[in-house]
Amino acid sequence: MTYRISSDFLAQHNAREQRRLDADYDALAGMLQCRGGDIEALVSLAAGFSVALPSWGVGTGGTRFARFPGKGEPRNVFDKIDDCGAIHQLTRATPGVSLHFPWDRTTDARALREAAQQHGLHFDAVNSNTFQDAAGQEHSYKFGSLTANDPAVRAQAVAHNIDCVELGHALGSKGLTVWVGDGANFPGQHNLRGALERYLESMRAIYAALPADWLMYIEHKLFEPAFYATTIADWGTSFACATELGPKAKCLVDLGHHAPNTNIEMIVARLAQFGKLGGFHFNDSKYGDDDLDSGSINPFQLFLVFNELRDAAVREGDAFKPAYMLDQSHNVTDPIESLMTSAVEVQRAYIQAALVDAQALSHHQKNNDALMAAQTLKQAFRTDVGPILAMARLRNGGAIDPVGCYRASAYRDHKRAERPQAAGASSSGIV
Amino acid sequence: MTYRISSDFLAQHNAREQRRLDADYDALAGMLQCRGGDIEALVSLAAGFSVALPSWGVGTGGTRFARFPGKGEPRNVFDKIDDCGAIHQLTRATPGVSLHFPWDRTTDARALREAAQQHGLHFDAVNSNTFQDAAGQEHSYKFGSLTANDPAVRAQAVAHNIDCVELGHALGSKGLTVWVGDGANFPGQHNLRGALERYLESMRAIYAALPADWLMYIEHKLFEPAFYATTIADWGTSFACATELGPKAKCLVDLGHHAPNTNIEMIVARLAQFGKLGGFHFNDSKYGDDDLDSGSINPFQLFLVFNELRDAAVREGDAFKPAYMLDQSHNVTDPIESLMTSAVEVQRAYIQAALVDAQALSHHQKNNDALMAAQTLKQAFRTDVGPILAMARLRNGGAIDPVGCYRASAYRDHKRAERPQAAGASSSGIV
Amino acid sequence: MTYRISSDFLAQHNAREQRRLDADYDALAGMLQCRGGDIEALVSLAAGFSVALPSWGVGTGGTRFARFPGKGEPRNVFDKIDDCGAIHQLTRATPGVSLHFPWDRTTDARALREAAQQHGLHFDAVNSNTFQDAAGQEHSYKFGSLTANDPAVRAQAVAHNIDCVELGHALGSKGLTVWVGDGANFPGQHNLRGALERYLESMRAIYAALPADWLMYIEHKLFEPAFYATTIADWGTSFACATELGPKAKCLVDLGHHAPNTNIEMIVARLAQFGKLGGFHFNDSKYGDDDLDSGSINPFQLFLVFNELRDAAVREGDAFKPAYMLDQSHNVTDPIESLMTSAVEVQRAYIQAALVDAQALSHHQKNNDALMAAQTLKQAFRTDVGPILAMARLRNGGAIDPVGCYRASAYRDHKRAERPQAAGASSSGIV
Amino acid sequence: MTYRISSDFLAQHNAREQRRLDADYDALAGMLQCRGGDIEALVSLAAGFSVALPSWGVGTGGTRFARFPGKGEPRNVFDKIDDCGAIHQLTRATPGVSLHFPWDRTTDARALREAAQQHGLHFDAVNSNTFQDAAGQEHSYKFGSLTANDPAVRAQAVAHNIDCVELGHALGSKGLTVWVGDGANFPGQHNLRGALERYLESMRAIYAALPADWLMYIEHKLFEPAFYATTIADWGTSFACATELGPKAKCLVDLGHHAPNTNIEMIVARLAQFGKLGGFHFNDSKYGDDDLDSGSINPFQLFLVFNELRDAAVREGDAFKPAYMLDQSHNVTDPIESLMTSAVEVQRAYIQAALVDAQALSHHQKNNDALMAAQTLKQAFRTDVGPILAMARLRNGGAIDPVGCYRASAYRDHKRAERPQAAGASSSGIV
Repeated sequence: MTYRISSDFLAQHNAREQRRLDADYDALAGMLQCRGGDIEALVSLAAGFSVALPSWGVGTGGTRFARFPGKGEPRNVFDKIDDCGAIHQLTRATPGVSLHFPWDRTTDARALREAAQQHGLHFDAVNSNTFQDAAGQEHSYKFGSLTANDPAVRAQAVAHNIDCVELGHALGSKGLTVWVGDGANFPGQHNLRGALERYLESMRAIYAALPADWLMYIEHKLFEPAFYATTIADWGTSFACATELGPKAKCLVDLGHHAPNTNIEMIVARLAQFGKLGGFHFNDSKYGDDDLDSGSINPFQLFLVFNELRDAAVREGDAFKPAYMLDQSHNVTDPIESLMTSAVEVQRAYIQAALVDAQALSHHQKNNDALMAAQTLKQAFRTDVGPILAMARLRNGGAIDPVGCYRASAYRDHKRAERPQAAGASSSGIV
Repeated sequence: MTYRISSDFLAQHNAREQRRLDADYDALAGMLQCRGGDIEALVSLAAGFSVALPSWGVGTGGTRFARFPGKGEPRNVFDKIDDCGAIHQLTRATPGVSLHFPWDRTTDARALREAAQQHGLHFDAVNSNTFQDAAGQEHSYKFGSLTANDPAVRAQAVAHNIDCVELGHALGSKGLTVWVGDGANFPGQHNLRGALERYLESMRAIYAALPADWLMYIEHKLFEPAFYATTIADWGTSFACATELGPKAKCLVDLGHHAPNTNIEMIVARLAQFGKLGGFHFNDSKYGDDDLDSGSINPFQLFLVFNELRDAAVREGDAFKPAYMLDQSHNVTDPIESLMTSAVEVQRAYIQAALVDAQALSHHQKNNDALMAAQTLKQAFRTDVGPILAMARLRNGGAIDPVGCYRASAYRDHKRAERPQAAGASSSGIV
Repeated sequence: MTYRISSDFLAQHNAREQRRLDADYDALAGMLQCRGGDIEALVSLAAGFSVALPSWGVGTGGTRFARFPGKGEPRNVFDKIDDCGAIHQLTRATPGVSLHFPWDRTTDARALREAAQQHGLHFDAVNSNTFQDAAGQEHSYKFGSLTANDPAVRAQAVAHNIDCVELGHALGSKGLTVWVGDGANFPGQHNLRGALERYLESMRAIYAALPADWLMYIEHKLFEPAFYATTIADWGTSFACATELGPKAKCLVDLGHHAPNTNIEMIVARLAQFGKLGGFHFNDSKYGDDDLDSGSINPFQLFLVFNELRDAAVREGDAFKPAYMLDQSHNVTDPIESLMTSAVEVQRAYIQAALVDAQALSHHQKNNDALMAAQTLKQAFRTDVGPILAMARLRNGGAIDPVGCYRASAYRDHKRAERPQAAGASSSGIV
Repeated sequence: MTYRISSDFLAQHNAREQRRLDADYDALAGMLQCRGGDIEALVSLAAGFSVALPSWGVGTGGTRFARFPGKGEPRNVFDKIDDCGAIHQLTRATPGVSLHFPWDRTTDARALREAAQQHGLHFDAVNSNTFQDAAGQEHSYKFGSLTANDPAVRAQAVAHNIDCVELGHALGSKGLTVWVGDGANFPGQHNLRGALERYLESMRAIYAALPADWLMYIEHKLFEPAFYATTIADWGTSFACATELGPKAKCLVDLGHHAPNTNIEMIVARLAQFGKLGGFHFNDSKYGDDDLDSGSINPFQLFLVFNELRDAAVREGDAFKPAYMLDQSHNVTDPIESLMTSAVEVQRAYIQAALVDAQALSHHQKNNDALMAAQTLKQAFRTDVGPILAMARLRNGGAIDPVGCYRASAYRDHKRAERPQAAGASSSGIV
C-alpha cells in the first residue's frame, strides 16, 4: 500500500484554516454584494472548473544543461497517477490526467484505469511522442517524424500516433494531442513547403484512424527543438492544417509557444471565431517555452485569455468546451506543489473573468471609452478571489490551503521511502 | 518644363563606368561558367524584373518625434511621378508606381496617366488611407475605420475604399491594398472578435465593388499605430480573412510587420502553398516597422524570401505572379537614392535566388544533408551578382551606377530650384 | 478666470462615495489585521507618495501615422499647468510637473512659478529637446545633436541643455533629463564608438554647468527614432556614461525603452546596487515604446519594479530617493483621465510592494523555497489595496473616485469653451 | 594508432581542386586590383587568423527534448583532440582548443599536452562547469553555484574554478571562462541584488587565484537555464562586474546570449571603448541561444561584428587581442563538418571586414552620407572572398575544400570503427 493523505488529516488541516477563510469569505461577499455580485454563484462556478494534469509534469523537469532530480520522484505511470491523485484530492480541480506515450505505456490498461478511478481521476487527451527515439525503435526521428523525407520514418510516426489513439481509447480518453518538433536548423535544410505537405499527408492518415467522438489537437510552437524553421510554428499554420484536415482537427494553444510580444488572447479570440479553438496547454514564460508555473510571470495575461474564453462561451453556448491542460516543467520546485498552485492560478483567472461586468464592458466599448473599458477588466482582475477558490475546494472535499496541507502531510517523505529507485527518463517532465 | 536627366548625360556617365563593368562581368562570367552557370540567362532574368515604387516614398519620412525634410521634395503627385520616373530611368527596374489616396488624389486622371507614360511608368496597386483624418472628412477614424463601432464611420471608410478602386481603375491599376491601423491600445477597449466581424463585413462591401480583373491585398501588421491589439495583426488573421472574402482577396507581406524572431520566408512559403500570397511591401528592419532600405539590415533574409519565391514559381508556373512593391521611409537619405538602391537590392536577391542549384539543393534535402543544403544556398548568396544587374540596366537603357549618375546630374539641386514650396503632409512617406 | 473644480463640488462627490469606501476599507482592514498588517500605516505611506506629471502628457499624443486631437486641449504651458493642477487636486499624488523645453519655454518664469503654486505644484526635472528642430534654430538635428559630427551642431545642443538648466533653476527644478534620439538608421552611418565619444564630450560640458544640488538623468532607449543603432541604447551604456561623468549623473529607466523580454526589475536592482539609479519614466508597453498608461498591460511587472525599490530603500535608507515621473502618450483617452489613473496605478504598485512580507520572503529565499517565495510576492500583489489609496486621497483632500469626479465636473467641456484654438505642436505628448 | 588523414591524401585532394581555385583567385585578384585592393595582403591576413575550437563541440549536441547521437563520436578528451586536430589540419585556422572541466579532466596533463602538440594544437581558455552536478560532488548546484545561498555550495564552486585554473595552467592555457547558469525561475526566488553580491564575492576569490598572465572571461546570457532572472544576464552586468573585479576580468560576448533585436556589434564597440572586451563565443541564432553554425542565419551581422573589431584594432593597436572561440551545438550535422565550416565563416567575416574601405567610410560618416557609408560596408560584404580563404589554407598546408576532403577521407567511418562505445555525457556539446 502506498501512502495517501487521509481524509481525517485533511479535515483537521482544514479545521485550523477555516476561521480565517470564513472571515475573508464574508468580507469578500460583502464587497461583491455592494457591486451586485453573488459570491455563492462564483463558488459554484469555481467548484465546476477543472484543468487536466500532464503525467510528465509530476517528475522534476530540466534543461538541456542539466536536470536536478527531486526526492521521491515517480518511477512509472502508476506512481504518477498517485501523485496526480494527491493533487486532485487537495485542489478538487484536476480530475483529468493527460498521458504521454511511450513514456506512460502499460500493458495493463484495465489496471491503470482502475488506479485512476481510485483517485477519482479520468484520462484526458493522450500525447504522442515523435521527438525522441524510443528504445528499440526501428527508424530515428533525428531528421523529422511526420514530415521526414524517408517514407518509412513517416509510416512509423503515423503508426505510433494511431497506436496512441488505441491506447487512449482503451483508457477512456477522447482526444489526441499531436506536437512534433520537426523542423530545420539551417536555411535550405528543408523544403519548407514540402515538409508541410508531408505533414498533412501523415496527419490525414492519423485523422482517418480517430474514433467518431475524438478530437485531434494540433499544437504549434515557434522554436525548439528546431532553431531555424519549425514546421508547425504558428497559429496560422496550425489553423490552415486543422482546416485542411476536417472538423475533428482543432488547434491547441500553449501559452509559451509564441514569438516575443505576441498578443495571445487575440489568437484565442481568432481561433474561437473561426471554430478551431481546441484547447490549451497552460504555463507561463518570459523568454521562450520556459514552461514556468501558470500565472507566475504575467497573471494579467492569463486573465485576459480567460476574458476571451468568457466572451466565446457567451457567443457559442454549451458547444464551446475547449480542453484545459497544464503543461509545465518544474525544475526548482516540488512538482506536486507547482501543479497544485498552477491549477489554482488557472481557476483564479477563470473566476476573475467571470467577475467582469460584461454589460458595462460592452457599453464602454460601444462608446469608445477605452479608459473605462480597461478599468472594467482591471476591477475584476484586482478582486482577490482567493476565498472563493478556497471555499469551492472545501465544499468539494479538498484543502483550504493545498500546499500547506501537502507539506504538513509529509507526502514527499513518504514517497521518498516508497520509491527507492532513481527516477528514469519517463518522468523527466520536458514537454 | 521640369528637369530630367538627359539620355546623353546618362550615356556619358555609363561610358566612364563601362570598362570596369566589362572586366567584372567577364570575370564573373568565367567563374559562373566553371559552375555550369550562364551569365547571359541571368542578365535576361534581371532585365525582366520589376518592383513597384511607393508614391509616398519619394518624400522624406519621419517618426512621431520629428520629420527633417530634405531639399527639393515633391509637392504633389506630379512631382512624385517625376521622381519615380528618374528612378526608373536609371534602374530600369521600377516601371510601376503605387499611389496612395487621398494623398495622390487628382481631378485629372488623364493628365496623371499621361505624365506617367512619359516616364514609361504605369500604376500598380492603389492604397486607401483610413488611418488619418483627411481634411473635410465627416467622421473621424480616431477609434477605427473599417472596424469602427459607429456604422457611419464604417460606411465612410468603405466608401473611401470603393472610391480608391474607381480612381485606380481610371488610372489602369489592377489592385487595391488595404491596410488599416485599427486596433486597441488597452485590454478591454475592443471586443476582439466583434472588431474582426465588423472588419469582414466592411471588406465584403469593398470586395463586391472590385472590377473582375482586380485583386485586393490584405496587409497585416503586428503593432503601430495600435499598441495593444491590432485587428489584422498577423498572417494567420490575414489568411483567414482572405479565405472568407474569396479568390480576389490575397495576403500582402510587409517585411517589417512581424513579431521579433519571426521566420518570414516560411510565411511566404505557407501563403504560396495555400494560394493566398498576393505580394510584398519590401523594406528592412531591426526592431519594428522600421521601414529601412531593403536589404540594408539583413540581406540574407531577403535572399531567403526570394529563394521561397523561386520554389513557388517552379511549382505554380506562370500563374504565380505576386506583386512586388517597395514600402520604405527615408528619414536620413535622399529618397530617390534609397529607392534606387533598394530596387537594386531586391533585384539582387532575385538573381541570387536564381543562382541556387535547385537540383543539388533537393538532393541534399532528400539525404538530410543539412550542411550541404545550407552551403548550396550560401554559395548562391555569396556570389556578387552586381555585374549582372549593372549589365541588365545598361542593356535596358539605364545607368551602370544609378546613384553615381544621379548625383552627377545634380537632379536634386534642379528640383530644389523648381519646387520652392515646403513639402506638405502628402509626401511624408510614413506608411 | 479659468474653470477649476470647486472644493464644494469635490466634497459633494466624495460624500456620495464615502459609504462604500468605508465599508470596503473596514473589510480590508480586517483582512490585513488577520495577517498582521496595519492599514493605517499603509494609508500614511500612500498619502506620502508622489509621481511627477509630464507637461507634454496633458495633450493628446499620436503616432507617425496620425494624431487625433481631443477637445479643449491645452494651448500653452499655463493651460498645461491648469490641467496638471486638476490631476493633482483629485489624486493628491502628483505635486511635481516635469517641463520640456523649448515646448514649455516662457519669458516670465515668475508667472509660471506662481501659476504652479496656486495649484500646489512644483517643478520636477526639466527635459531638453534635441530630437526636433525648433523654429528658428540655426543647425538641424537631422544627423544627431550631442553626437553630431558637426561641432557647431554639438555646441548648439550643449547650449540648449545648459539653457534648460538655467530655465529649470529659475523655476526651482533640481534635475535635467537628457534623452537624445541620436543614432543611425544604417550599418556604417555612424562610427559607433566615435558617436559615443562625442556624446561624452558634449555631456561633460553640460555636466559642468549643473548647479551643485542638481542631478542629471541619462535616459536610454533601444530604438526609435533611430532604427539601426541608438547611441544610448541600453542600461549598460547609460551606466558606463553616468560613471564616466561623475556622481551627479544618474540613469533613468523608462519602462518602455528595452529590448523584448528584458527583465526590467533586474535592471532596477543593478542600478541601485551600483549607485546609479536616478529615476523612472513610468508607462506600459507591449511592443516597443508604446507609452501606454502605467500598469495597463503588465501590472505585475510594475509591482515587481516596486518590490526592488522596496528592497533598495531598506538597504540604502533615506539616501535612496529615485525620481518618479510619468511619461505616456494618450492617443485614445482623455489625457487627464489617463494621467490620474496612471498615477494611482503607480501608487498602487508602491503600496502592494509595501505589503510584501519581507521577513517571510527572505526566509523562503534562504531556504531555496522558490514556490513560497513567489507566493509571498503574489499574496501582496493580489491584495486589492484600492480602499487604501482612496482613503489616502480623501484624507489629503482629493477625490475618492478621481475619474468619476472629473467627469461629473464637466471640466473638459469647460476647457473646450475656454480654449478655442487648435492645439499646437507644443502639446503633442510624444516623448 | 588512430586514423589520421594523410598528407598525401590531402595533397591529392587539393590537386583536383587547384585549377578551379587558381582561376577564381585570378579573377578575384583582378577585380580587387581595380578597386585598389591587394589580394596577397589579404591572403596573409587570412593565413594568420585563428579561432579556438570548443572541445565539447566535436560531440553531437541536443536539446532538452532529445539528443540524436552521430556515429563515431569522441569518447573522451583524447578522442576530442583527435577530432580537433583533423579540423585544424584541413582549415589551418583552429590551432587552439578550449577545454571544459570536469568533462575533459585528465590525470595525465603531460599526455594530453603531447597529444595536442602532435596535432599542432595548444590550449585556449578553459571553462569551468557549475551548471551541472558532477558525479560524486558533495553539494548540488540545483539552486545556484557562485551565487548560492549556502556558503558551502559557493565554496565548492569557487574551489572548482580554482581547480580549473590549475588544470589549465598545467596545460598552457592563459584564461578562464566563467559562465554560470545561476538565476531564478520565479519572481521572489532570488533577492536579485543579494545574488549578485554573492557572485562578486565568489568571483573575487577566483580572481585572486589567477596567475599573473591570465585573464578571466565573464560570459553573460539572457536566459536558459534560468527562466525568470539570470544573475549575469546582459553586458551591462558583465561590464559592471568586470570593472569591480579588476583588469584581468574581461567580458565575453556569445552571439546567441542577447535579447531579441539587440544590436550586438554595438555591444562590441562599447566593450572595446571601455577596455573590457575579452573575447567571443561565436555561433548563430534566430530565437534564443540556438548555438547554430556561425554565419548560418545572419552572415551580415557577423560581418558587422568584425567591422567593429577592425575599427577597434586600428584604435587600440597591438594591445587589442580579443579571444575568438567557437561555441556551437551540432544537432543535425557532423560536428567536424560544422566546425570546419564555421571556422571558415568567421574567417570570412574577418577578411570581408578587412576589405572595408576605411577611409571612404570615414569620409561618408563625416558627411552624414548614410547611403554611401552603408554601401561602403555592403561592397566589402558582397565580395566573395572564398578564393582568398582557400588560398590561405592551401599555403598553410590545409585543404582547399575542407568538407570535401574530409568526406572523401571517410574519417568518420574510421572513427566509427575505432570508437565502439556509446558516446557519454562528456561529449554532449551543450554549452
